[in-house]
Amino acid sequence: MSAISRCGCGIDIHAHVVPASFPLYMGATVPADWPSMADAKPCHKHVMMAGRVYRTVSDRCWDVGKRVADMAEMGLSLQAISPMPELLSYWMAAGPANDLLRYINDQMAEMIAHSEGRLVGLGAVPLQDIDRAITELHRLKHELGFAGIEIGSNINGKPLGSPDFEGFFAEVAKLDMAVFVHALRPCGMDRLVGPAQLQQVLAYPSDVGLAAASVITSNLLLRHPRLRIAFSHGGGTLASLLPRLQEGYQVFPVLQESILESPSQQARRLYYDALVYDDPTLLHLIAKFGETQIMLGTDYPFAFHDRTPVTRAASAISDETTRDLVVSANAKRFLGIGEHVAQ
Amino acid sequence: MSAISRCGCGIDIHAHVVPASFPLYMGATVPADWPSMADAKPCHKHVMMAGRVYRTVSDRCWDVGKRVADMAEMGLSLQAISPMPELLSYWMAAGPANDLLRYINDQMAEMIAHSEGRLVGLGAVPLQDIDRAITELHRLKHELGFAGIEIGSNINGKPLGSPDFEGFFAEVAKLDMAVFVHALRPCGMDRLVGPAQLQQVLAYPSDVGLAAASVITSNLLLRHPRLRIAFSHGGGTLASLLPRLQEGYQVFPVLQESILESPSQQARRLYYDALVYDDPTLLHLIAKFGETQIMLGTDYPFAFHDRTPVTRAASAISDETTRDLVVSANAKRFLGIGEHVAQ
Repeated sequence: MSAISRCGCGIDIHAHVVPASFPLYMGATVPADWPSMADAKPCHKHVMMAGRVYRTVSDRCWDVGKRVADMAEMGLSLQAISPMPELLSYWMAAGPANDLLRYINDQMAEMIAHSEGRLVGLGAVPLQDIDRAITELHRLKHELGFAGIEIGSNINGKPLGSPDFEGFFAEVAKLDMAVFVHALRPCGMDRLVGPAQLQQVLAYPSDVGLAAASVITSNLLLRHPRLRIAFSHGGGTLASLLPRLQEGYQVFPVLQESILESPSQQARRLYYDALVYDDPTLLHLIAKFGETQIMLGTDYPFAFHDRTPVTRAASAISDETTRDLVVSANAKRFLGIGEHVAQ
Repeated sequence: MSAISRCGCGIDIHAHVVPASFPLYMGATVPADWPSMADAKPCHKHVMMAGRVYRTVSDRCWDVGKRVADMAEMGLSLQAISPMPELLSYWMAAGPANDLLRYINDQMAEMIAHSEGRLVGLGAVPLQDIDRAITELHRLKHELGFAGIEIGSNINGKPLGSPDFEGFFAEVAKLDMAVFVHALRPCGMDRLVGPAQLQQVLAYPSDVGLAAASVITSNLLLRHPRLRIAFSHGGGTLASLLPRLQEGYQVFPVLQESILESPSQQARRLYYDALVYDDPTLLHLIAKFGETQIMLGTDYPFAFHDRTPVTRAASAISDETTRDLVVSANAKRFLGIGEHVAQ
């Protein structure tokens, strides 16, 4: 354990980026959610959307030097960066959204270029317009050299297992790119009682769990077995849903007919981050989803991020082989980078 | 294990009832969802609502003799019966809903009277009208001798932790009645991809998890520490949500201020059924929620019910004390019936 915690060999697949600034929108009508940055306390800026502060973020969102220094402290050799999810802008008209996401992807490419190999990219594509999304996907792969993309747990309320995204996922599989699914504008908001933070604490994992379930019930991975999809926050609530989905599959003939491989097996085709803040829960996920499917994730640099991902995994997981898989080997396979590990 | 599986000593807190028939509505306008029964295959009837078959159910929904015989097969000495959740009718005008629920409660009382002590009642109250709900609550307690009530995981979309229900829960606590929370008209329906059965398989546990979380974030059990609330389907997704809620509580000052006892501790004040169809998941729930808080639940007599609740618990739980708690002692305490076990 002490060796692994000192080695600086961890790979974090869940870390976010906000550019230091946004261009003014050049079109005729500025979209309501077009973001801008406003000064805040030292080393911080307000992300402004629709005339309000959406979130106040630290300069670690865009400062590569500070990020790389923090990574060393956290025991990380590599981080896959993705946009702050709200920037995915699926609700914006496709034209301006495409402009915005291209800008963000270019900013991420700049960060990666200055990271001396410490960062790889999970870019953004405008999924409200599949053709534009596929065009940007190709640019991410062939021009910017990104490892994959980040997508929301739903696209304007549509589940990821919807047939609407079939062509898009086929293209992702063809291009051999990784997909990181992050919670976004979740369902169940009217079920919360308390401060606004409960959105990310409770509704986010609920939406991610249903997203993963929709990928299973739609057999997406059976049609595209090489597709690599990872779910944030340990798959959210999927671990709680899965035994009941498995039982339903065994009990209801209509589910037996429509789900073409058992949910428990399909769940082992998906990837998950280890961001669950609890050792017994992490071990439960490893047992349920497989030791080859779990990877470090931190949510860096937001307030709610895990500052000790490697030591946490090292102390939770006693089996050395499993620990190595979770700390780095699974992420290499997911991201499609060197030293592939056989599945 | 063999001793406990033969003893017929299990108590099932999650089992449903549909009356054999419903009266015609006597008012001026029949509410759209007023139920009726139509003939189906032998020993079955269609429950008709809004002119359509809501569900086809077996006569085990109302036949006490068959139920008691099945209970013996299942190793159960006692069953707490509650209405098929859709009958709770929160969306109906309060007047006719009150008439309907009084009728259902009276039918349940008849079943209990004919059960030779094998059944106890978890009745229905019209929560769309708190005054009427409290009136019926008193009738359930003082006239019908019920152990408690069944309520939905939301009341017309309102979470259980809403201040709107404060007065009602205060009255429940005062009357020392048990509350069984069952999934009903869940959120997240637009996130499902596949047959209609996915509502009960995936959306039900999601809604129950958020319902339990709202009870925690609203500190309901701190204001009414003697309130006994049980959540169906093992608390749904709560086990997945809880570590993140606990971490959020530790990280966000605003959650630290609004949640008055840690979520992990509050979760141990709630009860849960063991209806999760998976031994490792059941053991995980026992570890997270406490061995004093989990009870058998079967969903009898619906298609998706657990036919071997006692042997399942007996084979999953190696510790004899814990097994006795889960099989019967916790349910006695929850239902407020003899042989109380110290908490």
